[in-house]
Amino acid sequence: MINIKDRVRNKELHAKIVSAEEAAASIKDGMNIATSGFTPAGYPKAVPLALAKRMEQEKFKVNLWTGASVGKELDGALAEVKGIAKRLPYQTNNAMRTAINNGEIQYTDLHLSHVAQMSRYGFFGGKVDVAIVEACAITEEGHIIPTTSVGNAASFVQSADFVIVEVNTSQPLELEGMHDIYVPLDPPHRQPIPLVKVDDRIGTPYIPCGVDRIAYIVPCDIKDDARPLAAIDDDARAMTGHLIDFLKQEIKAGRMPKNLLPLQSGVGSVANAVVAGLANSDFEDLTVYTEVIQDGMFDLIDAGKLTFASGTSITASPDGLKRLYANISEYRKRILLRPQEIANSPEIARRIGVIAMNTAIEFDLYGHVNSSHIMGTKMMNGIGGSGDFSRNAYLTIFFSSSVAKKGDISSIVPMCSHFDHTEHDIDVFITERGVADVRGLSPKERARVIINNCAHPDYQPMLLDYFERAVKATGYAHTPHIISEALSWHTRFLETGSMKIK
Amino acid sequence: MINIKDRVRNKELHAKIVSAEEAAASIKDGMNIATSGFTPAGYPKAVPLALAKRMEQEKFKVNLWTGASVGKELDGALAEVKGIAKRLPYQTNNAMRTAINNGEIQYTDLHLSHVAQMSRYGFFGGKVDVAIVEACAITEEGHIIPTTSVGNAASFVQSADFVIVEVNTSQPLELEGMHDIYVPLDPPHRQPIPLVKVDDRIGTPYIPCGVDRIAYIVPCDIKDDARPLAAIDDDARAMTGHLIDFLKQEIKAGRMPKNLLPLQSGVGSVANAVVAGLANSDFEDLTVYTEVIQDGMFDLIDAGKLTFASGTSITASPDGLKRLYANISEYRKRILLRPQEIANSPEIARRIGVIAMNTAIEFDLYGHVNSSHIMGTKMMNGIGGSGDFSRNAYLTIFFSSSVAKKGDISSIVPMCSHFDHTEHDIDVFITERGVADVRGLSPKERARVIINNCAHPDYQPMLLDYFERAVKATGYAHTPHIISEALSWHTRFLETGSMKIK
Repeated sequence: MINIKDRVRNKELHAKIVSAEEAAASIKDGMNIATSGFTPAGYPKAVPLALAKRMEQEKFKVNLWTGASVGKELDGALAEVKGIAKRLPYQTNNAMRTAINNGEIQYTDLHLSHVAQMSRYGFFGGKVDVAIVEACAITEEGHIIPTTSVGNAASFVQSADFVIVEVNTSQPLELEGMHDIYVPLDPPHRQPIPLVKVDDRIGTPYIPCGVDRIAYIVPCDIKDDARPLAAIDDDARAMTGHLIDFLKQEIKAGRMPKNLLPLQSGVGSVANAVVAGLANSDFEDLTVYTEVIQDGMFDLIDAGKLTFASGTSITASPDGLKRLYANISEYRKRILLRPQEIANSPEIARRIGVIAMNTAIEFDLYGHVNSSHIMGTKMMNGIGGSGDFSRNAYLTIFFSSSVAKKGDISSIVPMCSHFDHTEHDIDVFITERGVADVRGLSPKERARVIINNCAHPDYQPMLLDYFERAVKATGYAHTPHIISEALSWHTRFLETGSMKIK
Repeated sequence: MINIKDRVRNKELHAKIVSAEEAAASIKDGMNIATSGFTPAGYPKAVPLALAKRMEQEKFKVNLWTGASVGKELDGALAEVKGIAKRLPYQTNNAMRTAINNGEIQYTDLHLSHVAQMSRYGFFGGKVDVAIVEACAITEEGHIIPTTSVGNAASFVQSADFVIVEVNTSQPLELEGMHDIYVPLDPPHRQPIPLVKVDDRIGTPYIPCGVDRIAYIVPCDIKDDARPLAAIDDDARAMTGHLIDFLKQEIKAGRMPKNLLPLQSGVGSVANAVVAGLANSDFEDLTVYTEVIQDGMFDLIDAGKLTFASGTSITASPDGLKRLYANISEYRKRILLRPQEIANSPEIARRIGVIAMNTAIEFDLYGHVNSSHIMGTKMMNGIGGSGDFSRNAYLTIFFSSSVAKKGDISSIVPMCSHFDHTEHDIDVFITERGVADVRGLSPKERARVIINNCAHPDYQPMLLDYFERAVKATGYAHTPHIISEALSWHTRFLETGSMKIK
């Protein structure tokens, strides 16, 4: 067994150090298991792997609540042994996604800021039976020092019947001090969240727990399941260029301070490319208030352009993780991790006025966004935090390449096949073709700007044709649609493999 | 001319008292006109009527920004003379609605909490040229005492090039002291809104303006265009009964305090009936944090059940207004009006944990809501504040009768024809048939509960048939849909006049 005694600072607790198998044996059929982890960072690994092994023999299921997506040792392993009945609030694992789309697992796709409070309110059918949390170390008082993410761990620990801590020796001790833990009281006792600047510290550097509530401590040395980022492609480069031009114009018009406002950017390669691209811009003294700190933020810090980044998770690529660990004494001066209830808080997003930048799977003529479903039915990942930010931002931007599947899918459609964000929430759309600034526009005005500035030339005439026929058919109704044809592009793709008319 | 000199407390300002025609003459083609008014309460009347008269001759257009809907003297009169180019953020007037749906007026339908800050940010294409505000009185310092609503008046006054004040002598002076005006700073300077209880006073009892910024003062004695409420019907009574049972069960389960949490209820007859129905319940010491104070709140106060109501507008029926004015010395102890930026604030809604109760035009199997569009194309009123509250409430409830148009429309459809609220935002649906508690459920689980508990028996078998075929066709996908058929109920209605299969 890995020696973790120097990381468990209370000697009394050494008696609770057990194997992953022993800890996993405490988990029973039907339990609500709530874990640390947000994107594949800071989630427990050894206990889930041991639990999955047990499930292969004993055939039982649990419900799994996390911060967001987690790595293969948790989502993957449990989905593969059919060990999950219900999963929430977000996922990106292949085995998990398959099980969600074949009916094996019931999945509840939630705004990430809602999860902790709803679990405390008792809205998920019962309490947290056990919290399993990855830690760098446990303090003398039995409090938990998190690792590369915070997610919902603090709230889950607070609510759990009992707590299992995985002390992960692959996580450097220098992470200690990079967390700021604050769990709001629930109504009617809640107070204003006292955060007004991205670098404000409002809580403790550890998750309050206490010696008595820790049932098991498990050593682990499995690294975060970091995933490589896709190479930055031409589309991402073009979108970044459009963004920079647009933001410059906003500054010039007096609608944005010179150092912008705190940036939020979604998870994934496009979001990362956009952030990284700002390293080559003229902007200075930037700040970040977001969910995930991706590699692009390290570029910004190294370029001397980023003053401070607040998030709930460090979701680096394998190379990014190496970079972080090699230079952690510098990065830790500029990075702080908070519970997602604070990182994604509508109250804070609106107060500090974030620039919300997220990715759409598709959007429609009138400015609605589908972030989660392929052809209206199959779950991709989930809404994540995009709704927390986009509804409450100072400025809300959605990105997408104008086409997908080598041009057979137009990302701009007459009507979305699923709706995660409505016309009321979005200010600007950016594709590799250009920028559609739809602020203050009516639906009919939006349609023309989106077709002209964002759609792919292969689909522009088809979109314009639909729009103009819909306008006529409805007598210039507020939102013109030919309802019998609104989803015909998706139907055509499902039937022929292309949205193009052959 | 009506004598308003005793209501204009600064004698210097008496020189600015002019006729409505004289004030209206200051308005030019293409101006952004921003007015007080929220629902047909507290909006300017004399100047818009004079402006409409001018427009009949001179043929020009302005853009109209308000708090929410306003009465016939403003929306009606200007729409009828084709005097509006762009309208935002909400309306309920027939002439206005017609012009929005025939292309004469471009309408931007916005979250009501967003409007003031977006206007300050400069997102609506230019600044506020003139603010026209209805007042009870003007103070010695030139500050404005509002009347039956606050809406966006305070922010509009702050931003406007010049201000026209309509002093309305039909509004009782006892309204003074019933307002609490607080306009937040904009990012990056914004601070926490220091409100933690519904009756907290955080601002001034007047709209700060100052003598110099007032250009014209116009006397007016036209009453608010109060509209009668529909009689409480069997459906509304049944929904109220379901709500009360549901809330009792939540208290029993420990998920809700005994005196509930602050109630928010949308505008209109159903919302009013539900609130009024609580007067006959066992609940006590209720509080309200909402947009509009409707007649039902007076019932609750009279029944001794309502401790305090915070809103942005008193939207009473003609009878309700009489009742308010006759007993204003009592009601004013329990009612406070705030800017809609505070009344509808996501920060506050989430902090104090409102119970959000709003009305849907239709909702679908998977829990999405259409609040605004008839058959996906024609604008009814707008999203109003329903998104501000439903996204941020402690508990989010949507109401609808299970059918409309004498049964030819099912309010529960396979897929909504327009989306204002997504599956991520709603906890509970209530129709006259019953309650669908969808908290924590996956889409497929939601579908069964909604069909079983909320749908009309005439449509239950059709909904179940669609759902089961969609499940099979997609192999149990996360959100089962037969995309080519998802909107077929709407198409059938448009073609045959009924969603029923004949």
